[in-house]
Amino acid sequence: MRELDSSQADFKSQLEALLAFQEDDSAEVNRVVENVLKDVRVRGDEAVLEYTNRFDHMSATSMSALEIPHHRLQQALASIAPELKSALESAAGRIRRYHERQAQPSWTYQEEDGTVLGQKVVPLDRVGIYVPGGKAAYPSSVLMNAIPAKVAGVGSIIMTVPTPRGEVNELVLAAAAVAGVDRVFTVGGAQAVAALAYGTETVPKVDKIVGPGNIYVAMAKRMVFGTVGIDMIAGPSEICVVCDGGTDPDWIAMDLFSQAEHDQDAQAILISPDEACLSAVKASIEKLLPDMERKDIISVSLKERGAFIKVADLDDAIDVVNLIAPEHLELSVADPDALLPGIRHAGAVFMGRYTAEALGDYCAGPNHVLPTSGTARFSSPLGVYDFQKRSSLINFSSRGASDAGRIASVLARGEGLTAHARSAEYRIVEE
Amino acid sequence: MRELDSSQADFKSQLEALLAFQEDDSAEVNRVVENVLKDVRVRGDEAVLEYTNRFDHMSATSMSALEIPHHRLQQALASIAPELKSALESAAGRIRRYHERQAQPSWTYQEEDGTVLGQKVVPLDRVGIYVPGGKAAYPSSVLMNAIPAKVAGVGSIIMTVPTPRGEVNELVLAAAAVAGVDRVFTVGGAQAVAALAYGTETVPKVDKIVGPGNIYVAMAKRMVFGTVGIDMIAGPSEICVVCDGGTDPDWIAMDLFSQAEHDQDAQAILISPDEACLSAVKASIEKLLPDMERKDIISVSLKERGAFIKVADLDDAIDVVNLIAPEHLELSVADPDALLPGIRHAGAVFMGRYTAEALGDYCAGPNHVLPTSGTARFSSPLGVYDFQKRSSLINFSSRGASDAGRIASVLARGEGLTAHARSAEYRIVEE
Repeated sequence: MRELDSSQADFKSQLEALLAFQEDDSAEVNRVVENVLKDVRVRGDEAVLEYTNRFDHMSATSMSALEIPHHRLQQALASIAPELKSALESAAGRIRRYHERQAQPSWTYQEEDGTVLGQKVVPLDRVGIYVPGGKAAYPSSVLMNAIPAKVAGVGSIIMTVPTPRGEVNELVLAAAAVAGVDRVFTVGGAQAVAALAYGTETVPKVDKIVGPGNIYVAMAKRMVFGTVGIDMIAGPSEICVVCDGGTDPDWIAMDLFSQAEHDQDAQAILISPDEACLSAVKASIEKLLPDMERKDIISVSLKERGAFIKVADLDDAIDVVNLIAPEHLELSVADPDALLPGIRHAGAVFMGRYTAEALGDYCAGPNHVLPTSGTARFSSPLGVYDFQKRSSLINFSSRGASDAGRIASVLARGEGLTAHARSAEYRIVEE
Repeated sequence: MRELDSSQADFKSQLEALLAFQEDDSAEVNRVVENVLKDVRVRGDEAVLEYTNRFDHMSATSMSALEIPHHRLQQALASIAPELKSALESAAGRIRRYHERQAQPSWTYQEEDGTVLGQKVVPLDRVGIYVPGGKAAYPSSVLMNAIPAKVAGVGSIIMTVPTPRGEVNELVLAAAAVAGVDRVFTVGGAQAVAALAYGTETVPKVDKIVGPGNIYVAMAKRMVFGTVGIDMIAGPSEICVVCDGGTDPDWIAMDLFSQAEHDQDAQAILISPDEACLSAVKASIEKLLPDMERKDIISVSLKERGAFIKVADLDDAIDVVNLIAPEHLELSVADPDALLPGIRHAGAVFMGRYTAEALGDYCAGPNHVLPTSGTARFSSPLGVYDFQKRSSLINFSSRGASDAGRIASVLARGEGLTAHARSAEYRIVEE
């Protein structure tokens, strides 16, 4: 792991180099995705079926063979181990309760002259949830994407999940049942995004597509943005742990591992003003790593992208955190509340020594879909607000329209838009 | 103008054809924008200066010559006609008061075992506002983009506005002064977007870029999305008027004109169950059009993209509205409140005969930056929420971490992520 010190003159450029990550969005990926989108748009089901059979090594003969019926989801839920079923349901309950706090109501207010202004908030009609297949098929992601949509009141939730060689993940299906997903198609890649964005004979067109995916999925989402809404484009996952030296170093090491085990590009950073803390965690890493099931992934991730950052004090730590704008921030310190006001940029803040980031991944309640790669500077966790939309409401009284008409008329004429001006002037009542 | 009837068998496909609009995002535009972005990213000020001099026919010798100092904005405000100054300030006041209702507070709640969950809401640090130059330089747009950012508490607002041949729009500068813009650069096109997204020696890097622009600006925004946040990609403006036949047909005609005069691609649609109403508005259009200053634009817009739609009744009108998902919806009817619950998709709803859309463009209070081209299905007016972001807060008590740890452990092992499981298990306290 790299070692940085915030007191060094070139610290900022070293930090920038550490954080830099270039997604391989080559022209070739671009070309492939563009063709798939166009093809699905024109040929619908037929194209989706062909791409699915080709890319996922399937041999389906019709789109209906690629739909998983509702009773099959319930069957998966009934068949998994009881402790898994119970854990899924407990996690779903906590996630639901937290997200219910995010729902935003409509509002209006009346002005003195009787004019009413407001904002009407309604759920989206239909959304698509992309769930990656293979090694990254996580039932927790199904809960985290579907439950906020459900809480928002979305009318219909369509899930797509690739099943290479026909291998279905029972836990993913069980999670879909728990979350209340309406329809599931075993389709993935750009063809799944295209089917959801444009609709086919079988797959209904949705209004928004959320959920993580590989580079083809990310590129496809970027391209269909505007035709449908999309959530953020996710980069590799990161954790930034700030420790004052008072947490068991094994705990911190394991928290870093929990991020690093996701994939080799994941990033784990420990920040501390305490040299002894950094050394102790280093020793814990060496001690614990050999026994980890995913040690090969963890060691590449830590070596290539991990770092220890020595800072002057906890205030300095917060400055560094704000430069990083991490996806996950653990404040493993005695008094996390004292640091919180200084945090400007972080996807989620895990406060105190007990709050392992892993708890947030599954069942704390808040969403685990978070802004990566510094995008916490301008974006937010996935939430109920992503599945609601707003319409402005304006209802002028005769008096209000007359007064506002005078202002609008002056400004419209100032902009040379005289139809605007005349339209406003019609509503002016002379005293 | 086209004439449609919702009772016709092929109505839906006719409506689709009416609404279809293909932005010319050719490979050539793509290539040009890609080069400008790369060049500004690498060469900074030097590249911005070169492109500005070339594309906007300027002869600036340094970037500082492209910055409009603060006192110059105040000077513009002092020099415009007093009635314009007063109208700008009145409009700004109304816009500010409405948007203050949108600000979202942080919140937390405590669970029985002492665990605290919450959501911290903070403004973005710095945003960029793109204001188009030339014929579409609208002071009202400066107010509508800058005031929500200001209300959100954004630390710094950077505005860019092209000034082809050095022509400065005094009203735009005055609006920047009224709205509280911090810095203004006379730069436009993809080079302005690049400067804001990447930062240069002179232009500070922002966290989000908002504001409308031509196809080069829209393409550049799409490409820098992820490096910074962006607002929606705007298409041509549209209005949809629902009239029950009780509104003066001249008013309706002028309301349609006020949309059509924006540009030839703008779309104006009138929906009514009353054949006599449609005929009367048609007659008003013929009567009023010859006197309109922008009659050439209006007549092309109405001919190419305008439509009268005859419906069975007002319920049917609402169904058609929801298919269109219009940017602007006028409910020019006796009882607009009765129709409102049925409206699912509209950027802004102008209710009642007095509420001309033009009032909303300038001074009603709600934002005039609205989702176009049917994107009201999944997106919202520009608002304070676009300039705030959220961080999830999780602070587990020892007891809470132990209980949640059991759930997380089961799910993490179900996903094969054992470092996650062990990290959670460290926090489990055996009874």
